Amino acid sequence: MNIFVLTLFPQMFSGVFGESMMKRAFESDVANIEYVDFRQFAKDKHHTVDDTTFGGGAGMLLKPEPLFLAMDDINRRHGTVEPPAGRVIMLSPQGRRFNQEIAREYAECERLTFLCGHYEGFDDRVRQQLVTEELSLGDFVMTGGEIAAMAVTDTVVRLLPGVLGNAVSLEDESHASGLLEYPQYTRPASFRGMDVPPTLLSGNHQLIAKWRLRHALYRTWRERPDLLSTAMLDDEERAWLAKFERGDFSDIDIP
Amino acid sequence: MNIFVLTLFPQMFSGVFGESMMKRAFESDVANIEYVDFRQFAKDKHHTVDDTTFGGGAGMLLKPEPLFLAMDDINRRHGTVEPPAGRVIMLSPQGRRFNQEIAREYAECERLTFLCGHYEGFDDRVRQQLVTEELSLGDFVMTGGEIAAMAVTDTVVRLLPGVLGNAVSLEDESHASGLLEYPQYTRPASFRGMDVPPTLLSGNHQLIAKWRLRHALYRTWRERPDLLSTAMLDDEERAWLAKFERGDFSDIDIP
Repeated sequence: MNIFVLTLFPQMFSGVFGESMMKRAFESDVANIEYVDFRQFAKDKHHTVDDTTFGGGAGMLLKPEPLFLAMDDINRRHGTVEPPAGRVIMLSPQGRRFNQEIAREYAECERLTFLCGHYEGFDDRVRQQLVTEELSLGDFVMTGGEIAAMAVTDTVVRLLPGVLGNAVSLEDESHASGLLEYPQYTRPASFRGMDVPPTLLSGNHQLIAKWRLRHALYRTWRERPDLLSTAMLDDEERAWLAKFERGDFSDIDIP
Repeated sequence: MNIFVLTLFPQMFSGVFGESMMKRAFESDVANIEYVDFRQFAKDKHHTVDDTTFGGGAGMLLKPEPLFLAMDDINRRHGTVEPPAGRVIMLSPQGRRFNQEIAREYAECERLTFLCGHYEGFDDRVRQQLVTEELSLGDFVMTGGEIAAMAVTDTVVRLLPGVLGNAVSLEDESHASGLLEYPQYTRPASFRGMDVPPTLLSGNHQLIAKWRLRHALYRTWRERPDLLSTAMLDDEERAWLAKFERGDFSDIDIP
């Protein structure tokens, strides 16, 4: 996969993908990432990338030319990749909300290009003609699109074949099963007066599996009940839920 | 505001807050940020921070001691700050979903401490005793909590007094009014065959204000209809919405 990030602040990315799993992914041939400072494509002497808004308003807007020229340059150097294999993603609070399903979709792409806005955002013609989709991390406003591009890149790249050491981890984790994760513990069994639930130390794998499922269900019921409507539940699980609804937590041994 | 980030990868943050608005915020006294590598608090020879999971399972879990000791150290050096003024936030896909309202709440705090997980996550006793809240960026899974900590820090710090140059911008932007932003344009008025809508060049401020409101409403209706249920709408706005519902876009001049 080839990833291009159009940004005024390429230095922001220097440390982020230089560690751990992402470092290995970008050092191997699994994924390549290139940061394109679109200020280089502003043709005036001062490399101006922003200008005032037609119709008035406080902030400054990113001009269309530098972005169109930066994209032309990428396509000249690397060829064009049409959607759906090539996606041009504008990070913006206006966009579709990013989630694991979109990440899986992106993981199938040949090329992802991220446009990171700043100031009051982009001239709308960038959205109209350059972009295949607007994407939002959530209902909050950041200084620019860079951190959102990092979040999406990290989520997508770790789904690429060979990036996670252990394929089991992908199946196991939150939001893959539709439930939140069960509580997990490691050594020491007793720490500052807090003990690991005895079932987990019992060595009885059937009991442990049930404990985990019951506590995953409990945690989901308490923290994210919205996820329960789409989860596949069997009779025993429905019975546990009914107990929680009645305020009966006798089967639950976490605070 | 004092921000502490407990992380195994402090170098990830080196470039991120070294630019633009965030750089100024952290260079001034508006906010201080300190990265605490909790591996330093693992007392064995190899500075081990992870261990296998009680009850079995593939991945490795973050041990409780290094995190408890790192927190002890922060409190010893800087004093304790009880909630709600002091918040200890675990970044995890299990948490409450971050949004602008939570950001405004955090912007009132004296101290924010972020716990960035890796591998399969934390020993549950960290959540039980160290943490005041679990926070999620959204329904997707990243390599670790660092990028989420960056996103929350950026969103919160730019709300602190004096960080944004222009206070107007805070009022104006997406999700502040309950609607998405209207399309904006800057020079040139015509670019690669795409023209700025004539109303915005008219100089008629009343018409421009109406155009903007109508297009903000249109965009919200099309992209994020869920936001309309909580937005405050007057009769004219309701009439516009009714036209969109009927498939009448004669008042809309953006693609």
